Amino acid sequence: MDKVNLAEKFSLFSEYWSPKIAGELNGQHVKLAKFKGEFVWHKHDHEDEMFFIVDGTLKIEFRDKTVTLHKNEFLIVPKGVEHRPVAENEVLVMLFEPATTLNTGDTENELTKHQLDRI
Amino acid sequence: MDKVNLAEKFSLFSEYWSPKIAGELNGQHVKLAKFKGEFVWHKHDHEDEMFFIVDGTLKIEFRDKTVTLHKNEFLIVPKGVEHRPVAENEVLVMLFEPATTLNTGDTENELTKHQLDRI
Repeated sequence: MDKVNLAEKFSLFSEYWSPKIAGELNGQHVKLAKFKGEFVWHKHDHEDEMFFIVDGTLKIEFRDKTVTLHKNEFLIVPKGVEHRPVAENEVLVMLFEPATTLNTGDTENELTKHQLDRI
Repeated sequence: MDKVNLAEKFSLFSEYWSPKIAGELNGQHVKLAKFKGEFVWHKHDHEDEMFFIVDGTLKIEFRDKTVTLHKNEFLIVPKGVEHRPVAENEVLVMLFEPATTLNTGDTENELTKHQLDRI
C-alpha cells in the first residue's frame, strides 16, 4: 500500500495517448496520461469515463458542443456518448474508468492500446 | 454533462468530515471533503477507498504505520484495512469509492453520515 505522487509518475514517461495504470480500486483503474493533438472520435458503450486535469488545458469535443477543461477540473463522460479529446498543448490527465475500458472505445485504430503498462 | 471545478465546489461548504457528492460514474462516487482533526478508526469491509489530496497534508494512520499525503498525491486503502485519517490543518480531499460506502465504515458514531449532499 504505497502512495502515488502524480508529478513523480508523470516524469516517468513522455509518449502521448498512452495511459498508464497508476492504481486500481473496486474494479476501476486510475490511469495517468499525457495528451497532445487530436484523438479519435469514439464512445464507450458500457463505461462512464472521468477526465481530471492535473495540468494544462483539454478540450473534449462532443457532437453538439465542446467542453474546455482546465487544471483541477473534471468531466464525466457517460457511457455511449461520442467524444474526442483535443489538446493544443501538452496536458496531464488522470482518468478513472473500469478496468475493462479500451482507450479508443468502439473505434479501433493505430492509437488503440490493448495492453497498458503499470507505472 | 457539466464540468466540475474543484476550487468552486470547495468554496461552497466549510464543515469538516462531511463528504459531498461531486460526481458519479460506474456505480462509484466522486466526493469532495474537508478534513481537520482526528477522524475515527474504521474499515470498509467491501470497498476500496481512494484519497486524493487537492490541497494540504493528510496523515492516514494504519495499525502498523502512518502514510503522509501531500497535494497531488493519492493513496488507495484496500477493503478491510483499518485506518484513521488525521489532519493537523485543514486539508481538501477528493475521494473515490463505491456509492454504497459509509464514511465511518464499520464504526457508526456521531461522525457517521448516512445521507450525503450533492454539490
